[in-house]
This record gives sequence, C-alpha cells and structure tokens, in this order.
Amino acid sequence: MKGRSLLTLLRASLGRRALGSGASQVKEFLGASLPDKVTIVEVGPRDGLQNEKQTIPTRVKVELIDRLGQAGLKVIEATSFVSPKWVPQLADSADVLQQITKQPGVRYPVLTPNMKGLQRALAAGAEEVAIFAAASETFSQRNTNCTIDESIRRFSDISQAAKEANIRVRGYVSCAVGCPYEGKVAPGAAADVAARLYDLGCFEVSMGDTTGVGTPASIAAMFQACSEAVPLSALAAHMHDTYGQGCANVLTALQMGVSVVDSSVAGLGGCPYSPGAQGNVATEDVVYMLSGFGVQHGVDLERLVDVSSFICGALGQEPSARVSRAMLAARQRSETDQLSA
Amino acid sequence: MKGRSLLTLLRASLGRRALGSGASQVKEFLGASLPDKVTIVEVGPRDGLQNEKQTIPTRVKVELIDRLGQAGLKVIEATSFVSPKWVPQLADSADVLQQITKQPGVRYPVLTPNMKGLQRALAAGAEEVAIFAAASETFSQRNTNCTIDESIRRFSDISQAAKEANIRVRGYVSCAVGCPYEGKVAPGAAADVAARLYDLGCFEVSMGDTTGVGTPASIAAMFQACSEAVPLSALAAHMHDTYGQGCANVLTALQMGVSVVDSSVAGLGGCPYSPGAQGNVATEDVVYMLSGFGVQHGVDLERLVDVSSFICGALGQEPSARVSRAMLAARQRSETDQLSA
Repeated sequence: MKGRSLLTLLRASLGRRALGSGASQVKEFLGASLPDKVTIVEVGPRDGLQNEKQTIPTRVKVELIDRLGQAGLKVIEATSFVSPKWVPQLADSADVLQQITKQPGVRYPVLTPNMKGLQRALAAGAEEVAIFAAASETFSQRNTNCTIDESIRRFSDISQAAKEANIRVRGYVSCAVGCPYEGKVAPGAAADVAARLYDLGCFEVSMGDTTGVGTPASIAAMFQACSEAVPLSALAAHMHDTYGQGCANVLTALQMGVSVVDSSVAGLGGCPYSPGAQGNVATEDVVYMLSGFGVQHGVDLERLVDVSSFICGALGQEPSARVSRAMLAARQRSETDQLSA
Repeated sequence: MKGRSLLTLLRASLGRRALGSGASQVKEFLGASLPDKVTIVEVGPRDGLQNEKQTIPTRVKVELIDRLGQAGLKVIEATSFVSPKWVPQLADSADVLQQITKQPGVRYPVLTPNMKGLQRALAAGAEEVAIFAAASETFSQRNTNCTIDESIRRFSDISQAAKEANIRVRGYVSCAVGCPYEGKVAPGAAADVAARLYDLGCFEVSMGDTTGVGTPASIAAMFQACSEAVPLSALAAHMHDTYGQGCANVLTALQMGVSVVDSSVAGLGGCPYSPGAQGNVATEDVVYMLSGFGVQHGVDLERLVDVSSFICGALGQEPSARVSRAMLAARQRSETDQLSA
C-alpha cells in the first residue's frame, strides 16, 4: 500500500476510465467522497464567548445570535446554564435565550452541565440541551471535578429528565485525541465515551479536539474508532485550530463520513490551555472550504463576515478567522479604490 | 457516487476485511495514501522577507538561513537576484549567498527573474536557481510587464544559460488556481504553463496559490490537470494560508501524489494583495501535520520554533504560524510554573 496515492486508490476502486482525463471530472470525483450536505453547529456565542475575559452586554450576545441566524446558520449554541459562580460571563443565559428572536428552522441548543442547569434551561424555554464528558480521566477530574464514570451517571439523570421534558440532548466528548495533562488519548478511549453518551440517549455526539493537538492522522483514527461504536450520522467534528490543523482536520472528518461540523464565528474563543493561541476553527474558514466543493451548508459568507466584523468590533479585537481578515482587507481596499477614483 | 465516504471507497477498493476493526489499521490506511517522505522547500528568507517593508540586516538573513539548515531543512530558498530598484529589501542578495555557511546536503536555490539576475547569481556562487511564470495573463503583465509567452521565451534563455553553467532550474507558476485580477484560473491554464516550464528544462515546477484563494477542491483539480502534463514527482505545492486553507490544501496535494511542499518559517511574508492577511503556509504547521502521519521530513520542530521565534523577534512581530504561537505559549507557561514552584 505504501506510496500509493489517493488517486491511485480511487482509480483502482472505480476503474481508470471512470476518471477520464478532464480536471473537472476529478474535482467532482474527490468531492464525491464528501457528504452532499454539511450541518454547521455554530458554537461562538457559547464556547467562544465563555473564554472571553471581558463581560459582554446581553444585547450584544442577542444581536450576535440573531445575526448568525440571518446569515444562514441552522444550529446556534446560544449559551450555557453553568453556575454563574464558575463562568460569570454567562450569568445572563436565561435573558439571552429569552431575548433572541427564534427563527423558524433554527435550533438553539444550550449547555447544561448539571441538573440545576437543566432546570434553569427548561424554565428559560430551551428546546435542546448539550452535555459534555471527557475522554481523559485527568481532564474530567480537573475540569468537572468527577471521574468519567461519575459524569456519565450524572448525565444519565439529565438525559432522563430531558426525555421527560421531550427535548433532545447533544453530547460532547472533550480531549478526543489529546489531553493537556495526559498527552495522547487512545482512539478507543474516545470511542468508549462517545458510545456511552450515545447509549444514554444523546442524538448526536460531538468529538472535540479541545487543545487542537490533533492532525488528520489522529483525527482519522479517532473517528474510525468512534464509527465502530456510534453511527457516523450521529457523530460531529469539533475541531480547534491551535496548531493550524483546523480545516485539514475538518476535511479529514468529512472524508471519514462525518457530516456535522462545530465551528465558531471569527474563530472566537481562544484556547484556555494556551493563552494567545487560537481556539475553535473559524466558521468562515470552514464555510469557505465547503463552498469550494459545492457542499451545501446554507450559510451566506458575506453576511457571516459582517457578523464576524460586528462581534470583533464589540470585543475590540481582530477576527482570527483568516477568511474574515482577507475579505475585510479586500473590502477596505475596494473602498479606498473607490474613494481615490 | 455522491454521499459515499472516502472510507467506503477505500473499503470497496481493498475489501472490507483489509480494514479490520482496529483504529490503528485505519490510521496506517489513510497514511498509506500519502508519500513516505516529503521534501519541504523553505521559502521564508526569500518569499517571506521580500514582502517585509522594513530593511533587515544582512547578518539577520544569514543567521536565519543557517539556523533553518540546522533545524533540518534541506532546501532553503536563500534570496532573489531581482533588481534592487524593484525589491530594495533584497539588494544584499550576493552578500547573503556568500556569507551563509553552506551545509552538506542542503540546497540553497535563489530566484533569478532575468538574465542579469542569473549572471549575478552565478557570480555569487549560486548552485540552483528559480524562475517564475504566471498562469494568468493579466497577472503576468502587471507583475512582470510581459505576456506569458514572452516570459517563457525569456526563461528559455535563462534555462539554456543555467544548463551551460551546469546548475539546475526550478520553476514557479503563480496564480495556479486564482488571480487577483482575473478571478478563477482554469486548471488547464495552470497545467499548460507548468508543462512549458518543465519542457524548457525545469527539474521541478512549483504550483503557487499566490493569493491563497484555493480550496481542497480547486487544488485537487489543478494538480490533476498538471499531473497529466508533468510527472507528479516533478510537481511541488506552494500554498498560502490567506483563507485558512493552507494545511488542508497541502494535505490535498499530498493525497494527489505530490511530495514536495513549499512553506515559510513563522508564516513570514504576508500577502501583498491583502495587507493584514496571511501569506505563505507556515513551515511549522506543515511539519506538525506531516509528523502526525509519520511522514519523513527531517525537520526538528522544537528547533524550527526557535528559529521562528528568532526571526519574529528580529522583525518585532509575533509568528503567524499557529504551531509556534501554541508552542511558545506552552513554553512560557512551563517557565512560569517552574518559577512559581
């Protein structure tokens, strides 16, 4: 096998004639290994803003979420019902959820780390919640103060209560390929936690490369292991760009058959384990890549860049999304050209 | 074909049993579509520094090149023998080439845009030179003040003179998938210029996504067209990260069978067509990705990050390479931990 290119493999599988000699055929051909449609789960308002040190006014959060929906995002993780003691930035979660203008066909999941959070979320009108476990024992204990087993038991109660309230539960597995304390995480360990979340009723399990250490090689191995335990259609890729692998890892996940991708507008969030480093892969960068393949995603990139510019202006920072930096620079150049014309 | 995953295709081509049930097998399996060994062509000292507005002392350039060699890079594009009138930043090209400590087994190509540049390069002891053409007619005329045809004729003379001097010529094709003036560039147009450079004697042709607009889809189509005209072993990928696609596009090129990758330490260079946006894909990010697959590249990542830190310190800026940002942040954290322990 060594040294054979993907193209060779594809040719072998389909017969050389199927490929033809034109470049357009190959483009379709490589695209053919990808899903027709990808669902983007926008996590900026929650995963992004919870890592911002500054307090962001509720009206800014609400406008961010509303504008994301107008840009075509169909799933927007709105906030987290975590104790305000732990994450004071998200103390206004009920207000946020109640003040947004819910658009038809758009889902607004919220994070509920415990039963109290679930009750507050339900009271605020949440229609979908999310829980998170870790694939690393040390991370679980340091981040949530309980073992993986204990977290699963806790989530089992939450899942049961959510089912009774007739709302869906999404699961996250953090440290799916690497842990800031333990280093590499075995694919089997990630798959095991994914399977447990799926079995206790999560309709979808999002595999998170929390510290961004994953590469296409480790992401492929992790999703392969997960796909043996959970249907591919119930798996999502939650990639970070800390080591510049964000889009390459998303591409790998898509090539493995995953069709749900988490990302954060403007690349909001940073990485709490590497201050100054990049966190979540940017929604703009993912959308740009998907559009190249003609994969359906429903997002209007120009409007998304407007949202990116809006929230970064409110935070007083530059977007770390490379697409937004490039597109905003191009817009500015075009304005300058017009002024000097 | 639509909707079938890469895994399905691979399974179909090799039989399901070949895949087995273990994740490690798939990891090897996906890795098997990549080359065993990748040659990295470090372009930071030339392509990177020529886009810096400030004047960099010759001794800094020399130290940069020497340290890149010590970090394990085997091909380092050292400078450009362009007219100092056009690129004053590189007016010291002969001094740079003569002052570096050439290491055995390391190649130090230099750019020679015209015959005068070639003569100066030969006088300074160059042992390999590079020329660049464009796949876009407008870009060729605006950037080099001649048509593509005229540029090829000019290069033919340079190539002949280089042959007589017994040195190798590398070719670049800029705007291989997109042009700042014309928009999308057809794969056939890029392949045509690549073939002409190869036919006039270039041992290798590097396909450049000059403005970084390429996605895995367009990069795959472009390399497919090129591979029908030039042997894959004579093609290189010169990707930019302007739209966050750098590593994903490199991955795609590798999957297409390319095994030579251009990159720039620290992501030096920026993008002259989008001030403020990212330019060349960073060497650190590429090395990190290749290491994940166990692909041989010969580079010591820790030492490379030291070089990145050195040159960015000299330039008074942060590395835009995400790997360096993350690794330097981790080092600083570790030092703080030690001080407070």
